[in-house]
Amino acid sequence: MEINLVSDTITKPSREMLVHMLNAVVGDDVYKQDPTVIELEAKVAEMFGMEAGLFFPSGTMANQTAIKLHTQPGEQLIADKYAHVYHYEGGGVSFNSGVSCCLLDGVRGMITAEQVTNAINDPEFYHSPMTSLVCVENTTNKGGGACYELEELYKIKQVCEANNLKFHMDGARIWNALIAKKQDPKAFGQLFDTISVCLSKGLGAPIGSVLIGDKATIHRALRIRKILGGGMRQVGYLAAAGIYALDNNIERLSEDHRRAKEIAEVLKNVSWVESVEPVETNILIFKLVPNCIEKNLIELLKQKNISISSMGQGKLRIVTHLDYREVMHTYVLETLSKL
Amino acid sequence: MEINLVSDTITKPSREMLVHMLNAVVGDDVYKQDPTVIELEAKVAEMFGMEAGLFFPSGTMANQTAIKLHTQPGEQLIADKYAHVYHYEGGGVSFNSGVSCCLLDGVRGMITAEQVTNAINDPEFYHSPMTSLVCVENTTNKGGGACYELEELYKIKQVCEANNLKFHMDGARIWNALIAKKQDPKAFGQLFDTISVCLSKGLGAPIGSVLIGDKATIHRALRIRKILGGGMRQVGYLAAAGIYALDNNIERLSEDHRRAKEIAEVLKNVSWVESVEPVETNILIFKLVPNCIEKNLIELLKQKNISISSMGQGKLRIVTHLDYREVMHTYVLETLSKL
Amino acid sequence: MEINLVSDTITKPSREMLVHMLNAVVGDDVYKQDPTVIELEAKVAEMFGMEAGLFFPSGTMANQTAIKLHTQPGEQLIADKYAHVYHYEGGGVSFNSGVSCCLLDGVRGMITAEQVTNAINDPEFYHSPMTSLVCVENTTNKGGGACYELEELYKIKQVCEANNLKFHMDGARIWNALIAKKQDPKAFGQLFDTISVCLSKGLGAPIGSVLIGDKATIHRALRIRKILGGGMRQVGYLAAAGIYALDNNIERLSEDHRRAKEIAEVLKNVSWVESVEPVETNILIFKLVPNCIEKNLIELLKQKNISISSMGQGKLRIVTHLDYREVMHTYVLETLSKL
Amino acid sequence: MEINLVSDTITKPSREMLVHMLNAVVGDDVYKQDPTVIELEAKVAEMFGMEAGLFFPSGTMANQTAIKLHTQPGEQLIADKYAHVYHYEGGGVSFNSGVSCCLLDGVRGMITAEQVTNAINDPEFYHSPMTSLVCVENTTNKGGGACYELEELYKIKQVCEANNLKFHMDGARIWNALIAKKQDPKAFGQLFDTISVCLSKGLGAPIGSVLIGDKATIHRALRIRKILGGGMRQVGYLAAAGIYALDNNIERLSEDHRRAKEIAEVLKNVSWVESVEPVETNILIFKLVPNCIEKNLIELLKQKNISISSMGQGKLRIVTHLDYREVMHTYVLETLSKL
Repeated sequence: MEINLVSDTITKPSREMLVHMLNAVVGDDVYKQDPTVIELEAKVAEMFGMEAGLFFPSGTMANQTAIKLHTQPGEQLIADKYAHVYHYEGGGVSFNSGVSCCLLDGVRGMITAEQVTNAINDPEFYHSPMTSLVCVENTTNKGGGACYELEELYKIKQVCEANNLKFHMDGARIWNALIAKKQDPKAFGQLFDTISVCLSKGLGAPIGSVLIGDKATIHRALRIRKILGGGMRQVGYLAAAGIYALDNNIERLSEDHRRAKEIAEVLKNVSWVESVEPVETNILIFKLVPNCIEKNLIELLKQKNISISSMGQGKLRIVTHLDYREVMHTYVLETLSKL
Repeated sequence: MEINLVSDTITKPSREMLVHMLNAVVGDDVYKQDPTVIELEAKVAEMFGMEAGLFFPSGTMANQTAIKLHTQPGEQLIADKYAHVYHYEGGGVSFNSGVSCCLLDGVRGMITAEQVTNAINDPEFYHSPMTSLVCVENTTNKGGGACYELEELYKIKQVCEANNLKFHMDGARIWNALIAKKQDPKAFGQLFDTISVCLSKGLGAPIGSVLIGDKATIHRALRIRKILGGGMRQVGYLAAAGIYALDNNIERLSEDHRRAKEIAEVLKNVSWVESVEPVETNILIFKLVPNCIEKNLIELLKQKNISISSMGQGKLRIVTHLDYREVMHTYVLETLSKL
Repeated sequence: MEINLVSDTITKPSREMLVHMLNAVVGDDVYKQDPTVIELEAKVAEMFGMEAGLFFPSGTMANQTAIKLHTQPGEQLIADKYAHVYHYEGGGVSFNSGVSCCLLDGVRGMITAEQVTNAINDPEFYHSPMTSLVCVENTTNKGGGACYELEELYKIKQVCEANNLKFHMDGARIWNALIAKKQDPKAFGQLFDTISVCLSKGLGAPIGSVLIGDKATIHRALRIRKILGGGMRQVGYLAAAGIYALDNNIERLSEDHRRAKEIAEVLKNVSWVESVEPVETNILIFKLVPNCIEKNLIELLKQKNISISSMGQGKLRIVTHLDYREVMHTYVLETLSKL
Repeated sequence: MEINLVSDTITKPSREMLVHMLNAVVGDDVYKQDPTVIELEAKVAEMFGMEAGLFFPSGTMANQTAIKLHTQPGEQLIADKYAHVYHYEGGGVSFNSGVSCCLLDGVRGMITAEQVTNAINDPEFYHSPMTSLVCVENTTNKGGGACYELEELYKIKQVCEANNLKFHMDGARIWNALIAKKQDPKAFGQLFDTISVCLSKGLGAPIGSVLIGDKATIHRALRIRKILGGGMRQVGYLAAAGIYALDNNIERLSEDHRRAKEIAEVLKNVSWVESVEPVETNILIFKLVPNCIEKNLIELLKQKNISISSMGQGKLRIVTHLDYREVMHTYVLETLSKL
């Protein structure tokens, strides 16, 4: 029994999902003739109360397209210092959009309206880049699965409106936030110019993200997606998996959250852990005591068939997911408590 | 019976291919843990005698990545005036790579070594862009499926070497050339720095292209693919379709070629066609007589359940493919001859 | 007596111009506190009946800024195949703006409204770049100093308006056109979104170009100029030279034109010249007879202290200018006729 | 008597410098035929013991060119959080080079080798940008004119070499560091791949920066400068001012430093100043006590003919320079102490 807690991206489709894929009605999506893709795009848009959606081969491309849609070369976006768009998209913000990042010192990956206000460059001072976009990540990846309160997002939205900034949410794990906070997706749809959501993390589809927004913006996104090479042919097979995931795998995320919290409880009581960050969803970050070395612990767990990953500087990360089942969980809890 | 001769991209997987997809062993390809993707990449590389391959969600992204690998911003590539990379990749050459195109007036989309030689900018004359790459397309799309002789490509290769230029082949339809010309793929592997091949056109897979080259280049390509957003998760399902296509659908391309030639023979003998371009593979371009209007002809055929597309300026295009079967062909020949 | 007919860029300021420079009242133009620069910018704008101007260290930067102002990455501009912006600005169109060029086969560097109409990509066909800008050059450099008729420019303007395209004139040598065609600069000001004019060619100032347009556009240009590094400090010294040049050196361009025409007459009657292109202004392009080699002729003239330059493929170029005086002219006419 | 302490960029050439300019022997520098420019470039390179130099219209363009020379799009540079290249070059790092910035929390704008080491991304982890360049600023602008110890720079150089990073110094005010620290410019020449130096700040020339490095790098810089539009014609007039400045205005910077320190002493003893940052060169940053408002103080001083500038968040900046003479200094000291 191999237990992979490195990321929720490693899940594989269930048999039911595969059958759903196999039976998909497809067409050439480059000509916008794939009915299953069209259905998925509409379904996600509707969930969030937005006008339109567009399917992407990755969350990175969905985010990068959003950033390109909302900025011009030379401009600047504001994000938390842990932002996925800055750290883990290959430098794409600058490569694809010619845009720089103003990184804020947020809490667990979350920024405040006040921080945003202070970070906006004077638009008349042309020596500095024009600030044109705020990106938030929800839940936060490097921030340990933290979720925003809608109230703070609403305040940031007001700052954006007052300063003519666009507002994008990297919602790769928004599903986890919806479940953890019992939030209504439509509340998010009202706040953002664009939202990217991911079908291949907690939801368990093999591939795919959807970018949603108003019709005109998503129409422009089609052109950017083409340029980046994200136009695919009979992609309905992947869209079908996404539809299945939306219909079947959202509510069950609460299981992942429960398990992550239970692991946290165990870790709080072992001698080799210095601290455990608060757990809200399916990501758990903890810090080793000084004399305990990351690499060694990872190796030790590996020998017990448990894979977890390092965040650097004594921090480790555990991510629970669809393929992490109760039997595995029992074993993990036991193993960690006895280590 | 709907007959779509607009493009060979519209084919849908057969039941056998779908079953092959369903049974694929997959993993997270972003972590390079999907064995089926790795198998496909190695298979294509080996066919052409090259060291390594990388899977892409589209031919556009494979080409755009190749161009980025071989150039720096401000430089110039040389291609035929009909080149797909210039016309149909959304302006990506400039967007993704900051590179300009020097377009040559080739024959049916094919350029000569002599033309390339004359088009290279003096590298010391810094007012003009540095020429750094030659791209050929084989078979040519807008050139009507024409195929290069290996001899001319070899001459171009020599010009490239003498002038320190990289050499890329957009082989979206290279399979058609291999069959039509009875060429050995390994002969191409020796000529080019990179080759992109497409699995979703004549071969009938739903999605996917592979870029092949030497190990170091393909290793660098991984980073570019990440930046463009082409890193996908359990993409083995698509790779499995590609493997199936390579194993089963190459030889049968001769059928597509025969049918295209038979249609050409019919068109040469109808009053409303002024001229028919030579047919070598599965693409057929013909020109209407002056008083016959493209739009009207397309509409007329549509009413008879046959879809074809316009190339502008009185030219029309017909593309045969895997899903264009003999019964359809008989009907098309009859319909066209009687129109 | 060294006679340099390579380009009109090589002129040096006269003593009067230098004294004018020396006495300039200057300030820090980065803070927009240099009164002489402000005066020059206003003066040029007013000449052409446009709202505002901005000083640049080069014509290349003025053109590149204009292209950036009017386009977004991935878009396409339309220009003649000889266009300076394509050939001699280092590939900056793609480097600075991520834009590709659709080059038209014009006459002596000049394009027609009809050609432009045919070259515009369908804005809904997102596979091809969005066409967003038309650039004309007047007079044409590589086209041999040819000047547009206002009537044709007016027609192109109408095409631009009908298709939502911006319209820019590279007016590096517009002064020559104004004199040769007796045109009113205000007629140009009404046609274009932006015009770049050069002070360091026929006008004899050492350095500098001015980009003119409406206030909002030029305000945005300030930011682009900053990014490209064109913001300079006490640049009033250069602006003073420009003001002097505008006040004193425009009318005298007719002398340059007369001399170029007189040289053309001589060349038409020598055995080693196959043909002479029509001469409208100060640039003269001629073609050698087949057995006469460019390099040899340039060398032969060099020995007689006359420098001219090659255009490649048997073509040579002569450019008359402010520092090419009558005594030199007499010598050149005599030398050429006797060669 | 207007006293401008906003920046050292506002100085105007002395009569002697102007005469030097007037008498310059010039040529067309785009053809590399301006002897005075060539002399200046060689002179600066030699001072620092480097092989070659290139003249630029601004420090921004010199820095931006260096960054482009040392990076590829998508890569990342490391700099202090106060870096001019990040804050005050219009977002050019991303616009011109497609590069992102990893900003370190240095002391007064200066970073350490240890900080650099920790900030380098793992080159094999392709999700994050490749780190390829370290930029230091010396003296630091936003850091209050602080100067690096050579020892720390030497350590950073070792980190760069061990990690295959390029090393660039923004030496806009390096002259102040040389005087303040009694350092040998050749020591810097040995440490860096490129250094940009500015002639128009403390040295009092009206315009111009020089980028120095090895021959191959500076040769490549010529092409970048062309693309950015920094190629100028008879620019020897400006170069002559630079030569004069190098010959006459370096030693006297100690006067500027003395005056800045004397102002600091006064400010330390007035009630409305909370703290004064250490003064090493000609820049002085101080913080007001909480109830004292920046804007009001600036206005009050303005009424007494003294201009200074705000850094935001209660901080103000004073910069001494060539045109700030002893009589002004006496008045400023008196005015500040009595305010």
